[in-house]
Order: sequence, then C-alpha cells, then structure tokens
Amino acid sequence: MRIAAQRRCVSPVLPPRRGLCGRQARGAAAVRKITENAKKSLASLKRGNPQLEPTLAIIQAHDDHSIQEVNKNFAKEVGLRVIHICLPEDSSKDEIVNEILRLNEDPNVQGLALDLPESLYSSKVLNAVKPEKDVDGLSTVSLGRLVCGDGYDCLVPPIACAVMELLEDLGGKTVLLVGAGGAVGAALQCMLQREGAVTVSCQWEAPQLQSKLHHMDVVVLGSAKPDDVSVSWIKPGTTVISCSRDLLSGKHNYGQQNSHAAENVVGCLAIAMRMQNMVKNTERWIQSQQYRKWNLRCLKLQPLSPVPRITPTPLGEGKSTVTVGLVQALTAHLNINSFACLRQPSQGPTFGVKGGAAGGGYAQVIPMEEVRQQVPVPLEEFNLHLTGDIHAITAANNLLAAAIDARVLHENTQSDKALYNRLVPVVNGMRAFSAIQFARLKRLGINKTDPGTLTEEEISKFVRLDIDPSTITCQRVVDTNDRFLRKITVGQANTEKGFVRQAQFDIAVASEIMAILALTTSLQDMKERLGKMVVANDKKGKPLTAEDLGVTGALTVLMKDAIKPTLMQTLEGTPVFVHAGPFANIAHGNSSVLADKIALKLVGEKGFVVTEAGFGADIGMEKFFNIKCRASGLVPSVVVLVATVRALKMHGGGPNVTAGAPLKKEYTEENLQLVADGCCNLQKQIQITQLFGVPVVVALNVFKTDSPAEVDLVCKIAKQSGAFDAVPCTHWSTGGRGAVKLAQAVEKAANQKNSFKYLYSLELPIVEKIRIIAQKVYGAQDIELSPAAQSQVDRYTRQGFGNLPICMAKTHLSLSHQPERKGVPTGFILPISDVRASIGAGFIYPLVGTLLAQFRQPAKKVTLLKALEHHKSVAFSLFQSISMLLHFPDEHHARTAYKAMLL
Amino acid sequence: MRIAAQRRCVSPVLPPRRGLCGRQARGAAAVRKITENAKKSLASLKRGNPQLEPTLAIIQAHDDHSIQEVNKNFAKEVGLRVIHICLPEDSSKDEIVNEILRLNEDPNVQGLALDLPESLYSSKVLNAVKPEKDVDGLSTVSLGRLVCGDGYDCLVPPIACAVMELLEDLGGKTVLLVGAGGAVGAALQCMLQREGAVTVSCQWEAPQLQSKLHHMDVVVLGSAKPDDVSVSWIKPGTTVISCSRDLLSGKHNYGQQNSHAAENVVGCLAIAMRMQNMVKNTERWIQSQQYRKWNLRCLKLQPLSPVPRITPTPLGEGKSTVTVGLVQALTAHLNINSFACLRQPSQGPTFGVKGGAAGGGYAQVIPMEEVRQQVPVPLEEFNLHLTGDIHAITAANNLLAAAIDARVLHENTQSDKALYNRLVPVVNGMRAFSAIQFARLKRLGINKTDPGTLTEEEISKFVRLDIDPSTITCQRVVDTNDRFLRKITVGQANTEKGFVRQAQFDIAVASEIMAILALTTSLQDMKERLGKMVVANDKKGKPLTAEDLGVTGALTVLMKDAIKPTLMQTLEGTPVFVHAGPFANIAHGNSSVLADKIALKLVGEKGFVVTEAGFGADIGMEKFFNIKCRASGLVPSVVVLVATVRALKMHGGGPNVTAGAPLKKEYTEENLQLVADGCCNLQKQIQITQLFGVPVVVALNVFKTDSPAEVDLVCKIAKQSGAFDAVPCTHWSTGGRGAVKLAQAVEKAANQKNSFKYLYSLELPIVEKIRIIAQKVYGAQDIELSPAAQSQVDRYTRQGFGNLPICMAKTHLSLSHQPERKGVPTGFILPISDVRASIGAGFIYPLVGTLLAQFRQPAKKVTLLKALEHHKSVAFSLFQSISMLLHFPDEHHARTAYKAMLL
Repeated sequence: MRIAAQRRCVSPVLPPRRGLCGRQARGAAAVRKITENAKKSLASLKRGNPQLEPTLAIIQAHDDHSIQEVNKNFAKEVGLRVIHICLPEDSSKDEIVNEILRLNEDPNVQGLALDLPESLYSSKVLNAVKPEKDVDGLSTVSLGRLVCGDGYDCLVPPIACAVMELLEDLGGKTVLLVGAGGAVGAALQCMLQREGAVTVSCQWEAPQLQSKLHHMDVVVLGSAKPDDVSVSWIKPGTTVISCSRDLLSGKHNYGQQNSHAAENVVGCLAIAMRMQNMVKNTERWIQSQQYRKWNLRCLKLQPLSPVPRITPTPLGEGKSTVTVGLVQALTAHLNINSFACLRQPSQGPTFGVKGGAAGGGYAQVIPMEEVRQQVPVPLEEFNLHLTGDIHAITAANNLLAAAIDARVLHENTQSDKALYNRLVPVVNGMRAFSAIQFARLKRLGINKTDPGTLTEEEISKFVRLDIDPSTITCQRVVDTNDRFLRKITVGQANTEKGFVRQAQFDIAVASEIMAILALTTSLQDMKERLGKMVVANDKKGKPLTAEDLGVTGALTVLMKDAIKPTLMQTLEGTPVFVHAGPFANIAHGNSSVLADKIALKLVGEKGFVVTEAGFGADIGMEKFFNIKCRASGLVPSVVVLVATVRALKMHGGGPNVTAGAPLKKEYTEENLQLVADGCCNLQKQIQITQLFGVPVVVALNVFKTDSPAEVDLVCKIAKQSGAFDAVPCTHWSTGGRGAVKLAQAVEKAANQKNSFKYLYSLELPIVEKIRIIAQKVYGAQDIELSPAAQSQVDRYTRQGFGNLPICMAKTHLSLSHQPERKGVPTGFILPISDVRASIGAGFIYPLVGTLLAQFRQPAKKVTLLKALEHHKSVAFSLFQSISMLLHFPDEHHARTAYKAMLL
Repeated sequence: MRIAAQRRCVSPVLPPRRGLCGRQARGAAAVRKITENAKKSLASLKRGNPQLEPTLAIIQAHDDHSIQEVNKNFAKEVGLRVIHICLPEDSSKDEIVNEILRLNEDPNVQGLALDLPESLYSSKVLNAVKPEKDVDGLSTVSLGRLVCGDGYDCLVPPIACAVMELLEDLGGKTVLLVGAGGAVGAALQCMLQREGAVTVSCQWEAPQLQSKLHHMDVVVLGSAKPDDVSVSWIKPGTTVISCSRDLLSGKHNYGQQNSHAAENVVGCLAIAMRMQNMVKNTERWIQSQQYRKWNLRCLKLQPLSPVPRITPTPLGEGKSTVTVGLVQALTAHLNINSFACLRQPSQGPTFGVKGGAAGGGYAQVIPMEEVRQQVPVPLEEFNLHLTGDIHAITAANNLLAAAIDARVLHENTQSDKALYNRLVPVVNGMRAFSAIQFARLKRLGINKTDPGTLTEEEISKFVRLDIDPSTITCQRVVDTNDRFLRKITVGQANTEKGFVRQAQFDIAVASEIMAILALTTSLQDMKERLGKMVVANDKKGKPLTAEDLGVTGALTVLMKDAIKPTLMQTLEGTPVFVHAGPFANIAHGNSSVLADKIALKLVGEKGFVVTEAGFGADIGMEKFFNIKCRASGLVPSVVVLVATVRALKMHGGGPNVTAGAPLKKEYTEENLQLVADGCCNLQKQIQITQLFGVPVVVALNVFKTDSPAEVDLVCKIAKQSGAFDAVPCTHWSTGGRGAVKLAQAVEKAANQKNSFKYLYSLELPIVEKIRIIAQKVYGAQDIELSPAAQSQVDRYTRQGFGNLPICMAKTHLSLSHQPERKGVPTGFILPISDVRASIGAGFIYPLVGTLLAQFRQPAKKVTLLKALEHHKSVAFSLFQSISMLLHFPDEHHARTAYKAMLL
C-alpha cells in the first residue's frame, strides 16, 4: 500500500463475497454523511472567523488532471479552497521540495497533499511536508505519532480511515492485510489493533497464503492481486476491502465504472476523509491563533546565596530588575503568559560609569540560546550592539547629516542648471522625475511632468533648498561617550572650499530617529515620520524636512530591519523583547510601541505585558502617558512604581553617595526617621500617577541591609498614600519566586476600574502645556522661558507644530530642575532655557535648566580606564529617584493591538 | 512493551517450552559475539580517530543505580565512555528536557539513553532526544523511520533487536505479540514482518486468547502475564520470548537469578544491542565529520531573457559576479562542494555612485531564507549592515579614538596622584592592579604588586602615557560618505578646556581594525593584534599602543561577534560567507582569513573555496599573496583573472566612459584592433601572476555587445600569454550554467603543479620591498620617497617594525600611480608621498601619489540625491582594471585549516 506504487496499475477484481451491497450502501451513506459534516463544520468555522478561507494545496507532477478534478469537486462541495499546483512530470525532487517548503510557510494554506509519479515519493519529499499540514498523514512524524498512540497531534492517512469506516465490530476478529506496506499499511494495522482486531500482515508471496485467507474474518487488499492467487481462496462470507491508489484517487472508477462499486466506495470515502482531515487541520489552525496559556519550558533557577556579583549597577533602584523579576514571577511561577519589553542600553554608558541595563541578580535578561545559565555573565550580549538598532540609527542619522552639508556645498558652488542636470540626469537619452521629485514639485505648486518644460524660475525653486546653515538641527551622532565631539568644526579640508561650520556629535540614543523607532507603529508610519523630520530652516524661515532632501527612502531602507524587536528571555525563560532605547532624561525614555503591540498579541487576551518606562513618575511615566500612549492608542491597566529604602532615605535627607566609596551608615543601618521623611517623595509619585486615573502598585525592591521595620513602614505609607498595594520583592536574590506577591497584586490591580485620562489637551498652546506639566507633575510654582525659548515656541507655533505633545528634557535626580533638591521641592520657578522640536517623532522638547550639554555627549571619565579592562562597569554613581513600570493586559486593547499590527 | 511501564513489576514466569536451553545458550553466545564485535569496531574507530572518545550519556531520574551499573559494565567492556547523570526522582519533565537538550548539543556525546520513572516518559521527553543520538530508538521520528522502511537512518530499540536475534527462520511462521504496545511493540512487529513472519498482536484481554496462543509458532510476551491466563494455553514446542523492562535492564536477573535464564538472555542481549547501536552512532558521527559530497538542495534558476535590470553596477567588470557564478557552476552544475568568500561592501559607496557588491544578474548573493527568488532584488540585505561587522568596527575604533583624546585631556589637567587614584581606585577599602596594569608595570620595569608601594617617580611613569597629540594616527571613522569630516577640529566645547586639535573621520572600511578582522586567525590572535595597534607616539618618540591605553579587552569584546562570518547563499543555493570588507586600494582588500579557513573545512578535501581578492593582479592579488597568505599560512591552487572586452578596449586606447552617459560605439560595436591593443594589459596581469608560481585561468566575462571574434581574440591572446586556460562565461545572463566551462578549467588547473613563492623576503629593508613591488609588479623604473615618507620609514625601522609586509595604497585604475595611464605604462618613477603603519594588522602602507585624501573619506556627490530615492545606485563610474579571484582546494592546506580553526 505504498501510496504511489500502484498508480498506473489496474485495480484488482475480486467478486463480492459477503454483504458487499450492504457495505456499499453504507459506504455511500458514510461518504454523504462525512461530506455533509465537513461542510457544516467548515461553514461554522468560517462564520466564527470571517476572514478565514480554509485552503488545501495539491502539488501534482504529471499531466493527468482527472484525479484532482474529483478532489476539487469534493472540496468545492464542502467549501474548501483548492490551490492546485501542476508541475511537469520530469520535475526533480528538489523542485518538489522547494514547492513544499514554500507552501509550508504560506499562512493561508492549512493542508498540503501530493500527487506525484512513483519515483518522486521519497522520504525526503514526504518528510518535507510540515506535520501540521500533512493532510494525508504520510510523513515519518505523522506515522510515528500514530504508531506511538499520539492521536491528537497526528493526521491518519485518509485511505486507512476509509477502510476503518467500512469495517465494524472488529473486536476479536482476525484481519489479514495482504500486499500492504509503507505508511498506510502501518497506520491501518495500528488502527485495526486499537479496535481489538487481531491483525495479520503478509505479502502476496507468503507461504500458506491460501490457508491464511481461508481463516480470516476480514481481508484488506493493499495492492493488486497477482494472477496466481485464486479468488476462491477466500471463503464465502469474508469481508474483503480492496484499496489501491487508483481506487483511492477514484481515477478509474469514480462515477463511471459502477462494476467496481466496492472499490469506488473506498476511493470516495478516502477523499471524504481527506476533507475531514482538512476540517481537523483548520480547527487546529484556528486554535493556534487563539489565546491559550503558553506551554513554555521554563528554566529552573537554583539561586546561590549570597548572590554572586553579577550586576553592573549595584546602586541602581531596579527598574529593569523589577520588570524582569515580575515577568519571571508571572510566567514561571503563576503560569500566566507574560512578556517584558525593555530598551537596549547605549554603548556609551555601558563603557562609562553607569553600566548596562539587563536587570541584575537573578532577574536578568539572557540570549535565547542560553538554556542552563545558573550564574550567567551575559551582560555583554545585552549591552553590546545586540539588537543592531543603535547602529542602524547611527547610519541613518549620519547619512542624513552628510546629505545636508553636501547639499549646502553644492547649492553654493553650482549653477541652477548644473544642479538640475545632476538631480534629473539624462539616462539612456531620457530624463524623468522620480516619485519623490514629483511630490516636491507638487509642494512647490509646479504641476508639470516633463523635466524639459520647467521654466528657469521653476528649475531654481526645484533645485534650491536654500538651507540656512545656522538653523541646522540635525547633528551627527555616535554611540560612544566622546567628549571631544561636543563641539567641533567641520568642512576644513580644501575640497569643501571654505564651507566650514560649527557642529557637534550627539549620542545616538538621543537622536530623533531613535525616538521615531520607539514611537512608530508600522514600516509605512516610520517612513512618513522619517520624511517629516525637520532638519533646518530655509533662509526665509520655512522648515525643511528629510523628504525635501530626498533621502526618505534611503533612511527607511537603513531602518527596515531595526523596526523588528529582538527576542531574548529572562533567566527563568520568560520572553523579553529588547527594542530601541531612547534616553530617558533628554528623550522620551520608553521602550517601543511595536514591541509592546507584538508582545500584547503574543500573550493573548489574558496575558500581561510589562513595559519599562524610564525613570520616575515625573519623567518616564508622564512621557509614557502623554506621548507614547497617544502614539500607540494603548492604555495601561496598572502602574508599578519601584522604590527602594535607600533612595527614600536620600529623599529624606540622607548624605550623598559616591561610586566606589563605602556607603554611609545611614544607608546600611536601620533609620526609620530618614525613611519616613523620604516617603513624601513616594507619596508625590503616587499622586502623579493618580493624575492619570490608573491604579498603582508599589514594588519595594528589598536590599539585604533593609530592616523589616523599614520595609513595613514604606509599604504602610505607600498604601496610605493611595497605592492599590505595596509589596516588598526579593527577585534580585531569589528570582521570580521573590516577586510572586508583586505579580499577584499586579494581577488584582489590573482588574480594577481604570479611568485613564491625558494630563493636557494637545490643542492648548505650547507654553500652557509646559506649565501644566511643571505645576501638576513637578510641583513648580510657575515656568520661565528664556528669550531663545520663547522665540522657538513662537516659531514652532507659526510653523504649525503647536499641537504636538511635550517631551520635557529634565534631570531625573529631582522633581525640580535642581538635582540636589530631594524630597518634594515646592515654590520653584522652572526655567526653560530652550525649546526644540522632533517633528518626525512628534513632540516638542523644552530644555529645562542646563541639562542638555553633558547628556547629549557624556564624558568618558578616567575611572573608566580601569573599568574597560574588565569589560564591565564600576558602579552607578547616581541615585535614581523612583522608577516605574507599566503593563496593560486589557482585552480590548490587546485586540486593538492585534489588528493594528502591520508587521 | 511501553518502555517504562513495567519497570517495577515482577517479570512473568513461564516455563520453558521448546528449545529454551538451546536458545539460552545461543543467546549467551550472541551476547558475547555482539559485545566482542562492538569492542573490536570501537577500537578500530578509535585507532582511526585518536582524539575520539565514544560516549554514551544516560539520564537517570531515580535512586536505584543497580540498573545502570550493568550498563556501565557492558560499556566499559566494549570501550565506551559513559556519562551518567543522576537527577532526583521528582524532577519535572522540563528539567529532564533541559538536560536532554544540553546533551543533544554536546559534541562529545554520540548516544543518549533515558532511565526515568514511568510518569516522565512522555512524548515531549522522548522526542526531545535528537534522532541521531536516540540510541534506544524511542522517539517518534526513529519509529516512523523504521516503520517507513528508512532503515539506514534509524536506530531500532535494542530490546526489539534482542528478540529478533533469538528468533530464526521466521519465514511463514506466525508470531503472536501479547501485551505489546508503544514504540518497541510497533518496531518489533515491523521487523518480524520484514523477516517474513505473519504477526498477530493482541492484548492479554483479547477474546479467544487461548485459541490464538495455541496456534502460534512463536509468542512474544511484551508485559507481565495476568493471573487468569494459564501457561498451559501455550502448546508445547512454541517458542516463547518474554521481555519486560526489568529484563531489559537486567535489574532483577543479570548475573544473579539464573532461574530466569531466558529472560536474562533477552536483557543481556538488549544491553549488548544498545552497545551495537552506539557503535553505529559513532560510525555515523565519524562519517559526518569526514569529507563527503554535499547533498545540497540547489535552487533552480529559470533565467529570463533579457535579464531584468538587477545589477547596480552595469559597468563593473564582474569580480564578485564571477566569484558567485563560479561557485554556482561548481556546486549546482558539477556537484562539487564549493564555497564563495566575499567582503561586505561599505555603506559609503553603496549609497554613493559605485553601488553594492553582491554580484549581479543571475550570479548573485541572497540571504539564506530566500528559496524562490527568480528575479531577486536582494541587494539591500547584502549591502546594508547585514553582517554588522562594519558597525562593530566603527564602535571599537571610535571607543579607542575617544579614549586617546580623553587621556590627553586628563593627563594635562590632573596631578599624578589624582590620575593614580582614578586608575587604581580604592574599592571596598582595597586597592589592586588589574592584569593589564601588571603588564604595563612589567613593560615599565616596575616589579611591584602592591599599589601602595610605588614611588612617586614610578607612579608618574605608570599614570602618564605622555601622548604627543601631533602623532596621533588613530582617526575616528564613520561608514558614511561624509566629505565634511575629511578635516575637522575637535574639543571646542568649554568642558575640554581648550585642548582642541585637528583630526578627521576616515571611512570605517579603511580602518586598521577592519584589516585586523580580515587577517586574524582566532579570537586570541585578534585580541593580540588589537592590543598591538600603534595609535600615537609619546613625546620621546616611542610608539604607544591600544594596550598602553588599557582598552584591549573592551575592543575585543566589541569585536567578539564580528569575528564570525555571515552565511548567505547564491541564487542557486551555493553557500557564501560574507565577512569583513577592507577597501582594496587603500587597504589590503581581501576577504577574511577566517572565512576562507572555515569554508575550507566545510567543503572538505575535494572541495573548492573561491575567495575574492579586490582589484587586479597588481593590487588585490599582490596583497593576497604577500600579506594574506603570510597571515593564513594557506597557498592558493589557482588564480582566476577576470577580464572584459570593454576594459581591454579601454586599455587599448578607447575613449573615457562616464556614468549615466550612453556608451561610445567603440564599446558597443566590434573593434578587434582596440581589443588586441588592450591585451598588453591582460598579458602583464598574467605575467604578474606568474611571478608567484600559481597557474592562472582567465575568465572572460562576456557582455551581450561583445562579438564572437572579440571573445575568441581575448582567449587566444590570454593562452598565448601563459594562462593555463581562458574561458568565456555568461553566468550574468544564465547563472551557473554559463560558468560550467570556467569551473571545469579551474578544476583542471587546480591539479597542476604549484610552485608558489613570495615576491620578497620580509627581512629586506622597507624601501627595498617597496621597490620590488613597484618594479616587478607595476613595471616602474624606480621609486622616489618624499622626505616625510623617508622619515617615517626611518622611524618604523628604528621602532622595530621594518620586517612587516607592504600594503601599497595605490590607484586601481592603472598599473602606475596615474589613473589615466592605461595599457602597460613603463619608465615611470613611482612617488611615495607618505608611509604609515598598521602594526596590529601587521603591515606598512606606503601612500602612492595623492590617492589617500579622497578615498579615506569619499564625497557624497549630488548625483547621489536621485539614487538615494530609489534605494540603489546609478552606475559604476570607473572602469576597473582587471579583477581576480583565488581558490585553494589543496588537501594539505584544507587539513591545516581544519586544525588551525580555533572558533
């Protein structure tokens, strides 16, 4: 019964013995019933999934189409779409395999059947079919699953099902399979035995065949009867089922040669069974698309005590660490689908004094390949050009910057005509505008299509951007701390003909392209945002964009892979997306919208996505709500606010902390007064959260020096201040187990009523929006704009950018603009020294005080020299204020995210 | 016979019926024989593979070690190593699976057996075992393969083999399997049938069991006999084989309870058979390590005519294209293992006028995922930060450059003591030198280990590098054409306290780190080379290295992934390594040593590696031989010299060619005189090749405008000039099929005698080496060094770098230094304007004429603006001279490469 072996043979002719007519009638009824059931099932599946079109693909490699016509009729009857691929009879196995591989990957195909010349049915070909699409159950894996009893996962060959359908009451009967072999024979034997039959299998040449045939209750003929076997060897009353491939396919018999009615029934039944398999496949496909708890192989953690020194930021408050610990708890301990979304840290700080950001202790991110890391040292992978995002951003940004200077030079040194000839060159005697040039002509009000017809004036308008070099805001970037590039002069070579100008290199993660990557929702959206970036003004004060420079396509192509998040995992096997990485003080500091959306789709309706929002409620969270939520259309269900006893002590008036120096005793010994005094800051952070109407859970990241009384005090005050709950966690030393209570509190909070609202309307004037943030969030008395800032506000308003959200560039070390003012400063006037715009990213960014210079290009300190030798960093020199996380498992939004996904 | 089902049951006791004693004796003999054979086979395998230690891993998850003791005794007897992993009885399935996955990946383990509590034998666990290590044949795939008749690839469960061994003359006999199921039962039934037996399978509860038992020739008991089945049901003379898991393991019987001798035999035999399976696995493992022709699924090409415009460099001569076409011919058409090794192009030229370098037409490189590209547009993947190599180099280089300037600043603004405190800080009250600092102390002649004991003078020597800023040679780099960075002033911000200096950005692919990546042979070697880079001199004129700056480790960690080549494929499925990408005029221009070595290992002894050497015999090949061959220790077997009729016409005096402009008729119409005149250049290139003693095959890359007479003429002259062969190829329009004749010629040439020799001895003075290259290769009359060049030569000689090979930075447009001098210029004096050194990469590079400036930072031309819009480039504006390829399939060197591989 090797599936293809008999395709061209004549079917065996055996006389009806017992009950054939009854069996025939029953078989025909079964065909009808199976077909009708399949039809009903498919119709019902389609009603529940309107966009679904269940599809069977058939690869045929010969010229006889009659066989597949029958298949197609059945498919049409039950409502299946058929893709019928006809290859030449002399196709090679490789070609068949290539076709199979293509269909394996086609998400619109649920089943795949082969109809090939005998010589092509090799195991290489049969096993190329993905088991879940193997509608004829012929692959090694399908057969192995059947034989092993792995019934749910396997598809049984339709012809074996057909034979079984025709037999009944098999218990104790003896069944002889003659001339059966291969996958179908093995499958049949296995199924017969499961029904209680005693099976005997032999070839036509077996000795004593006559005697065997004589003693059987049922005989199944798997291949054509040789002439030397007499029909009379089968005793009257024996049930005989004959099935060869021709019968299966119905080629010779279906609807025409009624003399072979029994075989006809087997053939039709087999086709009906194939349709039944398709229904099964379609159901499984739909299931695979629906929410289900992951069957994740979690990694078992066996934490050492004390924890080996495996964190680069022992003085950090644990924003990333809590994110990681929380998803470890959710998935590895509470069996809830969850995903963490983190930013990739810049290589600048990684090689600087701060260090990386992959979590720490036993709550860390590691690459997907690591399955047995008990004491991992994986930070290098995470921190060093792992995702490639920052490199792509650097390449795109610097291409744009180079194009600006080159354009200024060429416009200044060439005639209109020369520029026009270069921009619209004659190629093979022809001259034509490109799409992007047509767009520019349209913006200029020139409605011409033939480059030869532009007037001199029009040519001049077209070729000259007339960039005002003093207004260029697009700086070159580098992902290295390089203080000597904070201010430079470029263009000093003779070839640049004296067009020198002062410029600077920013750090790549502070660039607008990074912000765009983190905020974009699709490739098309990213392209539009890149094109909209304002890079300078022309000499009349009009904004010039990347699109005006004609580089939108080039920037997009450089960024087209960076738009995909990188999958990693926690130490306990929870999935983590690492994507983008905007700085949190001078940029908007949140992980990417796309990573969140893809993660939401993957965790399903009841799952959790924990996404990091850089720095405290005053910076990370405010920007998350007012900027990122506006871009994504998503609303979080819970805010998780990370606090530490040490940071609160500092807010309560504790002494300063210096990296490398031993901690003062205020931080290592119990001091309830300092904690109580510092909790005003925690209270304020909770109040900020409440401005947005989302429940907040405080995660107290416990250090070994914290006393129980200190921990209790923080939790008590947090709850009194309006937190939904406040939970101490120990994931750093114990992994997810130490964050289980936090996870439970977060799950409860997520079921709370959520009355989310934005802090300000976009329609308000820029200054008013800044004032609302300063007063309501920071607690400032008022704001004060420098003349330069005011002039920029006026310019952006005039240019039509007044209705964008605000991204404050402010220190994270205080609620105010003065890093040394801890606790809850009041009565201060917030100085706005300058105002800039990231039009492509979609926000206005006011610079608060003097923050910008050192952060746009951090210094490489001498202490670094030693750190570099060890490939990791010394210590985080700054206390963060309070960090926070967000997550949003809301069903409605998960669906929204699902639909919004364009990748 | 579910493998674990009976582990704790008592074995069934059935009386001997027929021939048990004989069978027992035969069984015992078989155990001896199989064990001895296994022992002999393993010994023989080990003799042939001295480093091989065949290993069986056993994962046990219970506390009873007696079972595995037996296994270990057998293993010891036959010479197998056993890794016995004992996990607790309450281990989870995930933990077992994690352990299995780890052993799956362990290259020192050839077989893996499980000994688990019954509850852990799920299909998830059994199927986690890699089929090729599944020594007990229990996975779904193993079983499926056996049942499908895929005998060679599958491993049969040892107990099934044991039963078969005890039975003989099965033809026509009836065999009843009672209480057998699962994988072992199915396997046994399948094997019995293959031996001609009629098999009947039933459970103990089957009706008419008594009658069945009575009629059988052989009865195999798969599980313990229930009490209600009487032993007397089996008629005397029936062969009875009893096998339960306890027997298999020998737990109760082996060597102790001789009363169950028959079962004992089955158990021992099964263990012996497992050893036999281990021998089979070990043999297959060795085979998998040896040379064999790949069973590659080549991609079928159906070229369109005319070829769709899918090359970015229609005027290129086809260096990459011939490389790709040649391997397509070798592997997809001649079924010879082959690999192409290419450089990744810089993004500078990709977005400039030149375009990418992924081959062209139907000889192109595409990503591994693409299996059905008929008219591919894959260049973006190849050309745009595909490998990440250039980004890693940029990051490493710029970290080094930033460290230099920061060091100068800090040394100039801080006291010895302050510097010392930063370099050797007190951490937790302790102060200690790092390894790299010890190395520096040693170089300074200070043999102290306690940082507290250094004298003031020693501290000063230690902390001060005393960099002379005017001698800094390490420039920042960017992988963008940015002409405004050709000369800049850095350090102009107030924070840098006036330490401004003039500097420049080079293009990343011209950096020394790129050269190091392309020339290195291992991670350790790369680290040493990075540390040896001379970045400046101190004020006394001594060279200062990256190691002196203490950044060797940081540079290495940034480069640790870039050292791995990226695997791609040709349009016809031949594997391609893309790695590194040093420029060919100002750098050494060859693909990486490591890619060549790994590829050599992969193609095996009889395979071919085709590696690209940038530009003609005067540049790419000369550097390949004198620099790369010295670094790799490899010698090529054949040189393939790429020529085109158009390029030769230009060398014969044809008019200039401008990108975009229509080609002059000299190039599109037959002109035999121009071709004949230009062939002097081809002859000279062949003569250069012969200087090195390696046979040369000329590949004439045919364009559609070439006339047959022109093609014939070139081939004729090439052969007359000493080429081993000269072959026209049409791979651009027809894929590998068009390069079959070239592949055949290359294969023949590779069998020629090879008398390779270097052009110069390293011991010669620098100037002498330069002169030899200029005279023998370029045909110069002499060389002339500028005073600056002479002074540099003197300095490098004094510093001990005089014995490095030479990497000439010369135009590729002429054999001379003057691009416009085509053909074979003579009588010229080659001007050397400057001499620099890449000590880490290991060469001295003289600058010929005025080449350097524009190539170290190419211009972004205005014509580019249009090109950018289409994401690809316009045209290659320059005629290359003649390009060349090399390959070296030499057996000895393949082995050398194999052993040299440290990755």
